[in-house]
Amino acid sequence: MIMQPIVLYDLAGKEPGQNHSLATAKARYALGFKGLEYTTVRVDIDEIDSILVKLGAPDVGKRADGRDRHVLPTIVDPNTNPRTIVSDSLLIAEYLDRAYPSPSKLVPAECKVLYQTFVYTLDQLAQPWDPYLWVRCIEIMSPRSAETFREFCTSSSGLAWEEISPEGSERRETHKKALKKMWDEVDAWYAMSPGMWAMGGQFTFADLEVVGWLKSLQHSMKPQEWDEICQWNGGRWKRMVDGLEKYYKAD
Amino acid sequence: MIMQPIVLYDLAGKEPGQNHSLATAKARYALGFKGLEYTTVRVDIDEIDSILVKLGAPDVGKRADGRDRHVLPTIVDPNTNPRTIVSDSLLIAEYLDRAYPSPSKLVPAECKVLYQTFVYTLDQLAQPWDPYLWVRCIEIMSPRSAETFREFCTSSSGLAWEEISPEGSERRETHKKALKKMWDEVDAWYAMSPGMWAMGGQFTFADLEVVGWLKSLQHSMKPQEWDEICQWNGGRWKRMVDGLEKYYKAD
Repeated sequence: MIMQPIVLYDLAGKEPGQNHSLATAKARYALGFKGLEYTTVRVDIDEIDSILVKLGAPDVGKRADGRDRHVLPTIVDPNTNPRTIVSDSLLIAEYLDRAYPSPSKLVPAECKVLYQTFVYTLDQLAQPWDPYLWVRCIEIMSPRSAETFREFCTSSSGLAWEEISPEGSERRETHKKALKKMWDEVDAWYAMSPGMWAMGGQFTFADLEVVGWLKSLQHSMKPQEWDEICQWNGGRWKRMVDGLEKYYKAD
Repeated sequence: MIMQPIVLYDLAGKEPGQNHSLATAKARYALGFKGLEYTTVRVDIDEIDSILVKLGAPDVGKRADGRDRHVLPTIVDPNTNPRTIVSDSLLIAEYLDRAYPSPSKLVPAECKVLYQTFVYTLDQLAQPWDPYLWVRCIEIMSPRSAETFREFCTSSSGLAWEEISPEGSERRETHKKALKKMWDEVDAWYAMSPGMWAMGGQFTFADLEVVGWLKSLQHSMKPQEWDEICQWNGGRWKRMVDGLEKYYKAD
C-alpha cells in the first residue's frame, strides 16, 4: 500500500515556514522521528474551533464558558480506515507510537503521567516571562492571527499592547531574568541525567517539550537574543535543538 | 552476616511517632518497601547542620550565605564498610535500590530527571497553601523545633505568627482553595495513568512524593480536615495512603 501523507494542522505564519508554536513543533518532531511524510494546513487562531469541528476532531476538554475546547496541533491520518484524527501533541505522539511502532517509543506507556506533569511544569516556569515571547511571536504570525492574539494578550494581561514587555523597560528586564531562571532550573534537572536527554541516551516526549519551547524561541526571538540563549548553560540548549534538527521540517 | 539496623535521622516531634516531614516520610516508605530494619534519631531543626557535619554527612549544595546545606532525611547504613551516609530522599531511594536490589526499583535510572521535576512541581503547587500546613505542623513539633520554625515562618512571610493563616480568615479560605486546587491538578495527572500509581501498577518514587505530602497532611491537620481530604477526588488520596501503609513505620 502506498502511504498517503499525514495532514498536520498548524498555526498560520506571516511567511512560509514561520512556526511560532511550541505545541505544533512537538508534532513536527514526532512525525519526523517516525519518518512520516506530512503536509501542513495553516489555520488562523480565530478559525481553530470552526475548522476542527467541521473536520470532526475530538475536543480535548471544555472551555470556561462550557464550549468544547479544540487545539492545535491536530493531525489527520488518511492511511487508516476510517481516517484517524488526533489533537494535542502528547496524544499525537502516543498515536504515532501505536500506529507506527519504532524501536524507541516517544511515550513509554508508564511515562504518560510524568510527561503530562513535565508539560505542566515547563508551562508554569514560562508564565513569568511569556509576555516577552508574545511580543516576538506576533511579528511572525499572519496578520489575521496577530490581531486575534493581540486582543487575547491585552485582555488576559489587562495591559495595553505597548505596556506588555516594552524594549528597555524594567518589565522587560524582569521577563529576561525569569527566562534565564527557567532554563537554569531545567539545566539543573538535565544535569542529573545519565545521558544527553531527560531519560538518558534516547530522546522521548519530555525532550520534545523542552525542544518545542526552544524552537519557539529560536523562531520568534531576534537573532542576537537566540544567540545568547545558545550560550547559556554550557550550550545545552543549542546541542538539544541541533540534536533533533534532522527530524524537523519547517514548511 | 547479621544485618544491623539502618539509622534514620528525622525531625523531632512533640510525642513519639509524630512525624510532620514529608521528606522523611519518603525515606520511611523506601526503607519499609525494602524490608529494612531501622531506628530513628530525632533532631531539632536548629541542630540539623551541626549534627550532620559532625556525622560526616555530605552536603547537598550551598545555602544563599555560602555555607554547606544539609538536609533530613539522612540515613547511616552500618552494613557497609565504611558505613554509608546519604542525605536527601531521592538519593536515599537510589542508594537503597543499589545496595538492596528488589524486583521493583524505587528510582528506575532513566527516571531520575523526571522524578526531580515531579518533586519540584509538587513543591511549587504547595507554596500557595503551605502556611496553612505550617500552623498545623507547629502543633506536633518538639517545642524547641517549633520555636525555630515559628521564627522561620514569620521572617520568610513577613507576617506575625497570628496573621499567617488565621482560623476563619479570608487568608485561610485562600489557602484552602489552593490546597484543593493542588490535589485536583494531581488527580487529573493520575487519571491518565494505566494503573493506581503514576507509572502504572507498581509505585515508584514519584508516588512516594505524593504520599509523603499526604502523610504530612494526615499527621498535621485536624482529624476533620484530613477526613475531608480523604473524600476528595473519588477517595484517591486515602487509597494511596492506605496502599502504602504496610511500608510505613511511625516511631
